[in-house]
Amino acid sequence: MSSLDIRRATEADLPAIVGLLADDYRGREREDPRLPLDPAYREAFAAIASDEGQFLAVALLGDETVGTLQLSFLPGLSHKGAWRGQIEAVRIASHLRGKGLGAEMIAWAVDACRARGCQMVQLTSDATRLDTHRFYERLGFIQSHLGFKLTL
Amino acid sequence: MSSLDIRRATEADLPAIVGLLADDYRGREREDPRLPLDPAYREAFAAIASDEGQFLAVALLGDETVGTLQLSFLPGLSHKGAWRGQIEAVRIASHLRGKGLGAEMIAWAVDACRARGCQMVQLTSDATRLDTHRFYERLGFIQSHLGFKLTL
Repeated sequence: MSSLDIRRATEADLPAIVGLLADDYRGREREDPRLPLDPAYREAFAAIASDEGQFLAVALLGDETVGTLQLSFLPGLSHKGAWRGQIEAVRIASHLRGKGLGAEMIAWAVDACRARGCQMVQLTSDATRLDTHRFYERLGFIQSHLGFKLTL
Repeated sequence: MSSLDIRRATEADLPAIVGLLADDYRGREREDPRLPLDPAYREAFAAIASDEGQFLAVALLGDETVGTLQLSFLPGLSHKGAWRGQIEAVRIASHLRGKGLGAEMIAWAVDACRARGCQMVQLTSDATRLDTHRFYERLGFIQSHLGFKLTL
């Protein structure tokens, strides 16, 4: 399979990205990919695009948008002032899973974090996604933490 | 016990904050609270202070700096463009643990996230900190995710 073209998302990518977020057993319940898109997605895109600490990425295979993830570059005092790169909202089109595209996208993200001077990359994964946990462990991530959420 | 005074940290708070980060069984191994502080801490403080998405907080009891945490306000597309508040680097002075100050600090952080329009608050906790997990669950957080880290 030819390799991915991974680049910063533009607003024109938004319908495809929301489609990917919804193409998932969790996302199906909580996203709305119908066009015209809910304006909340455009507002969120504008907030991401205007924040230098955020990088919303799309991955293309030929002309098809097949993946997305968001990076957040976080300054902090811990670990003697280490920057962290955080990966969120990772999706690969369901018909293309299991072909190594996710690994390619995460490797790209880790490189992007390294290029920004991060000393650590972190992410959380829904506790029910067992295949995903093995996937990140194969890529060298250590499952060292538990993730807690509070809905407001 | 009188209640905490919680406010945004200034550079003058930095030695006390690094002292709190080091006053912990994990922090002891990786932080250096000796004065003059490692310049990396001052660089990290400057990065946090210049980023509108970050809020480094200190908690005072009278004149003593007894707690710290960092909030990151993260825009994202998931959950129909929901903002997330993320809590990192939570510490209470070791001689004051178990007195409810942590709960007061987290309640303050949750309110701060709500005031910024976040629809979710998230954090991770080292998998070995069992008391901390019960603490967050008592405050209403759901342990729904696993946290993965990759050191660069």
